[in-house]
Amino acid sequence: MSGGLTYAEAQKAIEAGLAKADEIGQPMNIAVVDAGGHLLAFARQDGAIRASIDISQRKARTSILMNLPTGDLLPLVQPGQELYGLEQLSGGMVAFGGGLPVHRNGELVGAVGVSAGSVDQDTQVAQAAVDALT
Amino acid sequence: MSGGLTYAEAQKAIEAGLAKADEIGQPMNIAVVDAGGHLLAFARQDGAIRASIDISQRKARTSILMNLPTGDLLPLVQPGQELYGLEQLSGGMVAFGGGLPVHRNGELVGAVGVSAGSVDQDTQVAQAAVDALT
Amino acid sequence: MSGGLTYAEAQKAIEAGLAKADEIGQPMNIAVVDAGGHLLAFARQDGAIRASIDISQRKARTSILMNLPTGDLLPLVQPGQELYGLEQLSGGMVAFGGGLPVHRNGELVGAVGVSAGSVDQDTQVAQAAVDALT
Amino acid sequence: MSGGLTYAEAQKAIEAGLAKADEIGQPMNIAVVDAGGHLLAFARQDGAIRASIDISQRKARTSILMNLPTGDLLPLVQPGQELYGLEQLSGGMVAFGGGLPVHRNGELVGAVGVSAGSVDQDTQVAQAAVDALT
Repeated sequence: MSGGLTYAEAQKAIEAGLAKADEIGQPMNIAVVDAGGHLLAFARQDGAIRASIDISQRKARTSILMNLPTGDLLPLVQPGQELYGLEQLSGGMVAFGGGLPVHRNGELVGAVGVSAGSVDQDTQVAQAAVDALT
Repeated sequence: MSGGLTYAEAQKAIEAGLAKADEIGQPMNIAVVDAGGHLLAFARQDGAIRASIDISQRKARTSILMNLPTGDLLPLVQPGQELYGLEQLSGGMVAFGGGLPVHRNGELVGAVGVSAGSVDQDTQVAQAAVDALT
Repeated sequence: MSGGLTYAEAQKAIEAGLAKADEIGQPMNIAVVDAGGHLLAFARQDGAIRASIDISQRKARTSILMNLPTGDLLPLVQPGQELYGLEQLSGGMVAFGGGLPVHRNGELVGAVGVSAGSVDQDTQVAQAAVDALT
Repeated sequence: MSGGLTYAEAQKAIEAGLAKADEIGQPMNIAVVDAGGHLLAFARQDGAIRASIDISQRKARTSILMNLPTGDLLPLVQPGQELYGLEQLSGGMVAFGGGLPVHRNGELVGAVGVSAGSVDQDTQVAQAAVDALT
């Protein structure tokens, strides 16, 4: 299917992410997008900050646009580094962790973005969501 | 409660809306926002158009901003009418049906926005989502 | 392939569109996007107006977002009609002709947008581009 | 000539760039703009990241706006340096390499922007595209 992930898969990923968020005790925003970066499913748990509504979605979209985990961009966009300023391009991207692309048979089929905790917590929850799809 | 709806309620509303969408055979985008107009939960069914990712969320947000069903705005924004151009204000609102505010004890606690079908279909699905909360 | 059309296909569509534009004697802007609405190839012929750089790309993107020819939207967005104001949503869409979705085996795989001539000329050129893909 | 490059020249530059990209084994986004910074031709090869659709076009446009290779800006926009923040101005510019202006008889006639690989790869491909024009 050309869009990549289905809604049922996206919702399954969200639920796995929410379970992980509950486990670590940090309410989260979780977004899942299709292969084109378009939103499929989203959840904001009670107590999760509202800034992360946008941030989680941008993390997922950045993972599609760059075909990389968002955390991989952090060293590259620092002052003096090769891609300084990158995060302001392509509509505004996120260059810290919490966004992960989803691949299947070597093909990019979607992405997950998580935000509201520390970058380490966000990444753990995103990984749990991705793991539910593979 | 200042935030209004909880995530659990939002997801319950989404599921009621999805069931209605299945019943009428029209895949939908459904968004639920809190009392401040901030996204709580979102679902896009397979086959639902992508333009409605934005439109469903704006319908929900417009319902909060105006404290009205979005369909109530349609006659008011026509050429020659009192609020002509309104839909371009406040960050961009939607002036056709499919967005419904959720009230509880006379208080605005959230809103639902639905998009991808005809306005009548969108409104039916939004109503089913709201009904699940009351 | 999850992105839909390939670059080789997009360029083939552009060339077919340019040939049609030459035939009718109207220089054109032609854009081809993938299944997610992301630009694959673009051409602006000498003498084609620059406003259509944006318009042709938006027509292609609108065809993806709505999964419809852009001309189908024109009656729906008129004052008093059901979707009045639609073209201002989802980042700005185009509601007049010249954008055509490309389907293959019932699946949306890309879209073509053409702009710079009359709507009839734009649509003819877009159709020639689409025909080259099927 | 006020518009600078023709479409035929832009497409010739793109093809030279694509050949170089094939040679180095890195799929690329390549954009060519006229003397006013307006897009003339664009190509995204299969497998090239989608973030670079925007970035390649901005690199070409930045080369026109600054009349410089984009890489020349990198030291100037660092924290503490003279033009810190420059890349956020004029609609958003790119301050790392991959954009090159095209001059003819001392006159700025267009620019090329390339993105998707390392900055060194992007610059090599942009140079190949420019070389095809001179």
